[in-house]
Amino acid sequence: MYSVERLKPDGRKLTLYSRFPIDPAIKATSPSDEPVQANPHLRWHPLRGEWIAYASHRQGRTFMPPPEYNPLAPSINPEFPTELPQGKYDVAVFDNRFPSLALAAQNPPASIVETLPANGACEVVVFTQDPEATFGSLPLDHLELLLQVWADRTRAIGENPHIQYVLPFENRGVEMGVTLLHPHGQIYAYPLVPPVPARMLECQQAYYRQHQRGVLEDLIQKEIADKQRIIYLDEHAIAFVPACARYPYEVWVAPIKPVATFGDLTPQQRQALARALKTVTLKYDGMWHRPFPYLMAWFQAPTDGQPHPEAHLHAEFYPPYRTSERLKYLAGTELAAGLFANDALPEEKAKDLQAVVVNIETPVAL
Amino acid sequence: MYSVERLKPDGRKLTLYSRFPIDPAIKATSPSDEPVQANPHLRWHPLRGEWIAYASHRQGRTFMPPPEYNPLAPSINPEFPTELPQGKYDVAVFDNRFPSLALAAQNPPASIVETLPANGACEVVVFTQDPEATFGSLPLDHLELLLQVWADRTRAIGENPHIQYVLPFENRGVEMGVTLLHPHGQIYAYPLVPPVPARMLECQQAYYRQHQRGVLEDLIQKEIADKQRIIYLDEHAIAFVPACARYPYEVWVAPIKPVATFGDLTPQQRQALARALKTVTLKYDGMWHRPFPYLMAWFQAPTDGQPHPEAHLHAEFYPPYRTSERLKYLAGTELAAGLFANDALPEEKAKDLQAVVVNIETPVAL
Repeated sequence: MYSVERLKPDGRKLTLYSRFPIDPAIKATSPSDEPVQANPHLRWHPLRGEWIAYASHRQGRTFMPPPEYNPLAPSINPEFPTELPQGKYDVAVFDNRFPSLALAAQNPPASIVETLPANGACEVVVFTQDPEATFGSLPLDHLELLLQVWADRTRAIGENPHIQYVLPFENRGVEMGVTLLHPHGQIYAYPLVPPVPARMLECQQAYYRQHQRGVLEDLIQKEIADKQRIIYLDEHAIAFVPACARYPYEVWVAPIKPVATFGDLTPQQRQALARALKTVTLKYDGMWHRPFPYLMAWFQAPTDGQPHPEAHLHAEFYPPYRTSERLKYLAGTELAAGLFANDALPEEKAKDLQAVVVNIETPVAL
Repeated sequence: MYSVERLKPDGRKLTLYSRFPIDPAIKATSPSDEPVQANPHLRWHPLRGEWIAYASHRQGRTFMPPPEYNPLAPSINPEFPTELPQGKYDVAVFDNRFPSLALAAQNPPASIVETLPANGACEVVVFTQDPEATFGSLPLDHLELLLQVWADRTRAIGENPHIQYVLPFENRGVEMGVTLLHPHGQIYAYPLVPPVPARMLECQQAYYRQHQRGVLEDLIQKEIADKQRIIYLDEHAIAFVPACARYPYEVWVAPIKPVATFGDLTPQQRQALARALKTVTLKYDGMWHRPFPYLMAWFQAPTDGQPHPEAHLHAEFYPPYRTSERLKYLAGTELAAGLFANDALPEEKAKDLQAVVVNIETPVAL
């Protein structure tokens, strides 16, 4: 993997990644020269025991570019520079212009609840230069590169002592609130382990103490033995609709042998994960012959410098549809009680995905 | 409050409530005579340490009545009986025909994760016979009756030893997935304290042990002193945008003096809460001159027979809009990390609501 780091005219950081050497003369661009003035803060929610991030500068984040303007495509028209330069590279990562968390944040306002500066990072990860591509259409070695990019970002951001947790994700589709259709994801880096990963680590630690094995490691072995819900399986990676799916078409993708972070993946695991991810996303898009919206979230160990033998890097896909025509709305029981009600059995939804035939460069062993 | 209980032709329970005596000759109706065959089950999610409810019979819950058919209005056409009989009553409660939880559930399927019968209850609460009414348009004494209905349902359902927690809520608006626009809410009763109320009780208990006061009780005193975010205030009740709001237009409504459950409210508190609720919902609808969607959820003490001095009955409104034109989507940081990012300051959003003038039968003291 090759990479170069640049500063944008407005002071934000840009890192380009490629399978091939990158032209050292390449320069960073930005839609605006104005320095980013983000100063988000956290407030403590005393009834839920969690922090909320406030970033009121984000309200101005819509602007009116020409209709054909795509801020995530390489700059072509010098009058309207985009977020990315022209040149040969595969993946680009840059600081979000409207971050919910910022390392430079300081002096949080006083409030009747406890406040803190929201010292974190929000990065945009542009998956490819091709606006028409999809995650599943990218070549396998491009997806392997992306796994290396996530490793590099976790390392680079996690080195900052403020940062406790790095979470890469992709919101895909207008149903998930996406306004830019160019293939991209985001990375949020938090000054604390946020509630869901914290709960997950608690469960993983309790199980590991009792069994000296990972809870997801053992669940995967049970999924393999049960066969019913498997979407992809080879020697190193698995994709499956978990027996405890909360969303009808939920899928998890994981290395079979646990690793704590992206940086711990072996080349074989990366290859296998790339095939698993490509299979899942092609099946999603193939099922109803249209782009399939989802949230893809990656869970890994905190960046607290401690060993985390209980952690098990994996992706969880949360798609908002329950049938081709109907959304699964999160409402009373999900949002108020936190107890998900799923109208579909994971075994049935897995069959829908298993039935979709996809072609990738190497055969899928099921 | 007057009430009568009836059994529907399909075996489901119906309870009618009124401010006036109810005709004892009134009979229950049902859109179908077929007995409800719901047998939902719970599965354990080992990575999140929580239960998920599966109710696959719910997929068939759409049917094709004549377009003018409203299953929540009193029956008029005997060929298409609705869920409710004709007659004089104010509020009706009946068992959901497609429940996510059912007291009769048994023999959960075997799975690679732990399973249990989903022994709970799902009730529909029809707020009024008038399909054109809104929560805010109901007379104050009608809203007081509704608070008594929630108390009666909590008592009636909570008596069952399976039931640990009773949560009334209203999903309002197509943005929340609502398909029936007749004013109604739901009650979910759980065989366990679900994750969000469990976390809330944990925070409340920790605070109560340390301060011998309620955490919400003290937060309310700070909100009153701070003045900025108050939407309604009188001697007994308050409505405010909390300093730690997760949704831009989030509002909490509570009695100022804590009570653990609906059944513990004094008549004065009920009167004041009715005025607070009417004020908030009229302001919501008045702000953009259109029906304002929200989830209204009520949190109270578990029905475990134990004293809960730490609990504080209150409603939380979660509206899905962040501006009149834009939804707040729950995506990466909310759904994957569980850390909410709010682009709006609660102080600013409170001003929007404070500016809406509403007329209710008695003056609002601010």
